[in-house]
Amino acid sequence: MDVRGYVEANAREFIDDLKQWLAIPSISADPDRHGDVGHSAAWLASHLRGAGFPVAQVLETGGLPAVYAEWPSGNPAAPVVLVYGHHDVQPAEPLAEWDSPPFEPVERDGRLLGRGASDDKGQVLLHSLGVRAALAASGAAAPPVTIKLLVEGEEESGSEHFADLLRRERERLACDVIVISDTTMWAADVPSMCTGMRGLLPVEVTLTGPVRDLHSGSFGGGVPNPVHAMASLLAGLHDDQGRVTLPRYYDRVLPLSSPERELLARLPFDEKSWLADAGHSGALYGEQGFSTLERIWTRPTAEVNGMWGGHTGPGSKTIVPQAAHAKISFRLVADQDPADVAAAFREYVAAHTPDGLEAAVTVQPAVRPCHSPIDSPAVQAGRRALQRAFGREVLFTKEGGSGPEADLAEILDAPLVFIAVGLDADQIHAPNESMDITLLQRGAEASAYLWDELAAAGIK
Amino acid sequence: MDVRGYVEANAREFIDDLKQWLAIPSISADPDRHGDVGHSAAWLASHLRGAGFPVAQVLETGGLPAVYAEWPSGNPAAPVVLVYGHHDVQPAEPLAEWDSPPFEPVERDGRLLGRGASDDKGQVLLHSLGVRAALAASGAAAPPVTIKLLVEGEEESGSEHFADLLRRERERLACDVIVISDTTMWAADVPSMCTGMRGLLPVEVTLTGPVRDLHSGSFGGGVPNPVHAMASLLAGLHDDQGRVTLPRYYDRVLPLSSPERELLARLPFDEKSWLADAGHSGALYGEQGFSTLERIWTRPTAEVNGMWGGHTGPGSKTIVPQAAHAKISFRLVADQDPADVAAAFREYVAAHTPDGLEAAVTVQPAVRPCHSPIDSPAVQAGRRALQRAFGREVLFTKEGGSGPEADLAEILDAPLVFIAVGLDADQIHAPNESMDITLLQRGAEASAYLWDELAAAGIK
Repeated sequence: MDVRGYVEANAREFIDDLKQWLAIPSISADPDRHGDVGHSAAWLASHLRGAGFPVAQVLETGGLPAVYAEWPSGNPAAPVVLVYGHHDVQPAEPLAEWDSPPFEPVERDGRLLGRGASDDKGQVLLHSLGVRAALAASGAAAPPVTIKLLVEGEEESGSEHFADLLRRERERLACDVIVISDTTMWAADVPSMCTGMRGLLPVEVTLTGPVRDLHSGSFGGGVPNPVHAMASLLAGLHDDQGRVTLPRYYDRVLPLSSPERELLARLPFDEKSWLADAGHSGALYGEQGFSTLERIWTRPTAEVNGMWGGHTGPGSKTIVPQAAHAKISFRLVADQDPADVAAAFREYVAAHTPDGLEAAVTVQPAVRPCHSPIDSPAVQAGRRALQRAFGREVLFTKEGGSGPEADLAEILDAPLVFIAVGLDADQIHAPNESMDITLLQRGAEASAYLWDELAAAGIK
Repeated sequence: MDVRGYVEANAREFIDDLKQWLAIPSISADPDRHGDVGHSAAWLASHLRGAGFPVAQVLETGGLPAVYAEWPSGNPAAPVVLVYGHHDVQPAEPLAEWDSPPFEPVERDGRLLGRGASDDKGQVLLHSLGVRAALAASGAAAPPVTIKLLVEGEEESGSEHFADLLRRERERLACDVIVISDTTMWAADVPSMCTGMRGLLPVEVTLTGPVRDLHSGSFGGGVPNPVHAMASLLAGLHDDQGRVTLPRYYDRVLPLSSPERELLARLPFDEKSWLADAGHSGALYGEQGFSTLERIWTRPTAEVNGMWGGHTGPGSKTIVPQAAHAKISFRLVADQDPADVAAAFREYVAAHTPDGLEAAVTVQPAVRPCHSPIDSPAVQAGRRALQRAFGREVLFTKEGGSGPEADLAEILDAPLVFIAVGLDADQIHAPNESMDITLLQRGAEASAYLWDELAAAGIK
């Protein structure tokens, strides 16, 4: 029996299993559901043991439990592949907007509807079916690579204990490549792989002038106004090309290769509907010389997330405000280092603080950017697996946001490959989250092919 | 008996009268004290009748009462002088910080201590003594000019009904010159006259982008951020010379004459202690080419009083904010017109709103600037009166703030002359307001000389 035949023959049982799992409301952000996060971990470990994984166990983290499973290769020289996903889910509110209860999964119009169907239980469980399909097709007793599964239970609430877990379990989790199954592809008929995520550096800056608000009739025009200085500081963060003006900001930014740009440009991107999704009637905007997708995926930014100072209530108050504040987040791309950027920001603030004002900068915990070169053997292997499953060329995307993936790559010191079959249409984090059942099966097929492709890719 | 002799001989009675008046807590901002504002008006009208004013009456305004008094000149061809002051006072809180109860006036170290001693009851009542001193010295039965007194009861709570009162009573209040007795002079040994007050135009601007906050990972760098645009808009309000960049902003600003600059420069101004008053450890700042006093008195400004947008709470929130807001007040100088400046601000905002954002501007009620040229006959007459009272040269100041004076000048169509003997040291609006008793007597003397000087000045 070939892979597709096995997946189709076992699809019914797979969907029923997934529905069992989806019925457990493993909401990590809700303390009342922490017991359910435990039940979810226990369910998965039990399921994986039933699927044939020689090792499958709940992993305590100090917070909510993860699940660890391992299926060693028959070939001790084979590479080790670690698959990352998570079994906790987003809260389901507002409940009234669901067409059916979020934790009573149902099939409808070829989709499986329920919280976690796409993010991330469906995309985790497809590997269980994929491994069995690969073994059924090859007739081997063990996969061609050693498979390790690490399924986190706190992803939707900040992955608080995840980096510590990785450090503590570094030996057990040692691997040659990390497969991330927690993203999306472009469209059902445009399969794609994510090849990077932007990092994040949140900072806050305060400029302080007088010890109290001053009467602008008596002092206005004669002393520096912290709000004016903040406006200039923020306005100066970008030049007239839309480039960020921090010193050395672009020094470590990896340039886009011509093949990358060409492949990105082939994605059927409708800027108008993207703007409409943003509720923006207006215009595109950004760094000159780059397309919108390049801007939001491949270029670092400086975004002011909030600012405030002086009188913000009703009516007018004629003051020179005592202080002004801003919260700024830098989206970083490989190989920018958050610590370098934080230092550059401090330099920038010092250079833009007028005489007579005091500046204070605080730097919050950062997320590193991550990047999978499209010509790397592991990415090429993943691409071939997806192409075999979908029967068409796989393109490349990136994600503008940030997750725990960079910690995985950094702490386990292995390259990332993103294999996912979720879609934006799945409405993850929103009411009526669902997952296309056909895409789940394609994902299981891609998983089945992936082990062979990685075994042959020379990544060890 | 000469003027000084009369003032000294009647000082005791004058101070005792003033203490009676100060005992009435005429706090216009406190509804519980509105009855006392009425008592204060009645007290003053009665006092002025007793002093010899042929007309002295309470004037209903629709709000709290004013007092109107009139003493016609013996010479029907003489000019008409309207004196403005107010009989309401600031609230006295915090009461615990007063050395003696605010409405139980006491004399201490040559000062009269009590709410309203300087602002403005003392400076109103000195004219009653001044008129009588003039008559005693000349032996005439009527003053050399027709004197009208208009003493408002709502100055400390916004003069809500004042402009309407002026319009309604325009004929009765008709005059050739307006004497304002509600400001300060530089120092006890540096007598001075105010020659202008800055106007005020408060505006608010909002820049709106998407219909909701956007995820900065998904949209950051690809759509315009209203906070960035607001920062640029605010930063662009001043050029690198500290000049305001609104179109036509300086077109109607009266230039400072050389004598004005020279006289301002002769004021013994200690920038260091002024900065210390502001609680500013830091540097001076402002429009290049002007001294600090010129900046805060004679030059128009644009001051951002408040701004806000996006996330302003604890922690970070990675959004492209939906909107940004700013409150700005323009301090105006003669002959700027608030309506012109409001139109210029709308033009400026339109020119600084990037494609894809919407701008909305609201304009709040404005105060016009006022200005008394130092070489005008009325100001010269006032200066001579003060110089005779103080026996030394009188310098010129301005005020950076704004009051109802511009309404007086505009509606009654007469020039302003500022005659006042208050000091910054009087702590008006604060606990322990007080007034130097010797300066009150000098003020009464100046008032006595003022009628002769104005009669001789050819201002009719």
